[in-house]
Amino acid sequence: MEQRISLITLGVADLSRSRTFYEDGLGFVRSNAHEEVAFYQLAGFVLALWSRSALAADAGLPDGDGRGFGGFALAHNVTSPTEVDAVLSQAEHAGARILKPGTPTAWGGYSGYFADPDEHLWEVAHNPSWVLHPDGRTTVS
Amino acid sequence: MEQRISLITLGVADLSRSRTFYEDGLGFVRSNAHEEVAFYQLAGFVLALWSRSALAADAGLPDGDGRGFGGFALAHNVTSPTEVDAVLSQAEHAGARILKPGTPTAWGGYSGYFADPDEHLWEVAHNPSWVLHPDGRTTVS
Repeated sequence: MEQRISLITLGVADLSRSRTFYEDGLGFVRSNAHEEVAFYQLAGFVLALWSRSALAADAGLPDGDGRGFGGFALAHNVTSPTEVDAVLSQAEHAGARILKPGTPTAWGGYSGYFADPDEHLWEVAHNPSWVLHPDGRTTVS
Repeated sequence: MEQRISLITLGVADLSRSRTFYEDGLGFVRSNAHEEVAFYQLAGFVLALWSRSALAADAGLPDGDGRGFGGFALAHNVTSPTEVDAVLSQAEHAGARILKPGTPTAWGGYSGYFADPDEHLWEVAHNPSWVLHPDGRTTVS
């Protein structure tokens, strides 16, 4: 596993409200045009706003009491499904709890989730339409 | 406010346990030697592990029931205390809740906190010993 975070996802209750806050309020410029998620290209990585309940469901966690799910996830992108499985295995051996094994995704990729010792979520993902640069930066295609 | 995240802080219950997980388990290499916090230089930004209770206290939030504090914070670093105040003011006008106004810090900088609409924490900070590059990357000095 390389020393890289590719994406920070903030789980949000109301995407429209959050987009207004970040775009109109703080001046962030969107990098995509999907209805259900907003991506913001940063210097070498990506900030995402996505439904908090959808994120919890995607990771197989309840979104009830605020325990066991902190409302966010970090993402570590890799170059193949095989590498997703290898990193998940490495994380499990390091003491992580596997929340979701490597699984084909609705968006044409492959990903799984693990929880670190404090239940912080990491998604390990192969997204064939994003670019992983040799220097570790991840960019939206 | 530029489209930048400089630091991701994960609040942890046991720093030693978390360092073992990230360093021994996942192979991350530390970029600092402070006892109370671990920094990991990523491609253009920094991951930090720090006491969850200390982070909550620094932002003026209770760390009790998991509501109102998600166990993490994003950081937006800027080049002066004046700019910290300006960004906090902009965030407040955008609808953020100011948790802590710009305040001199114990580490020789100046910072404040705001909560976005979902109570995600943003620290706005001037850290004179870190480097903000023209391309938006932040590096540990």
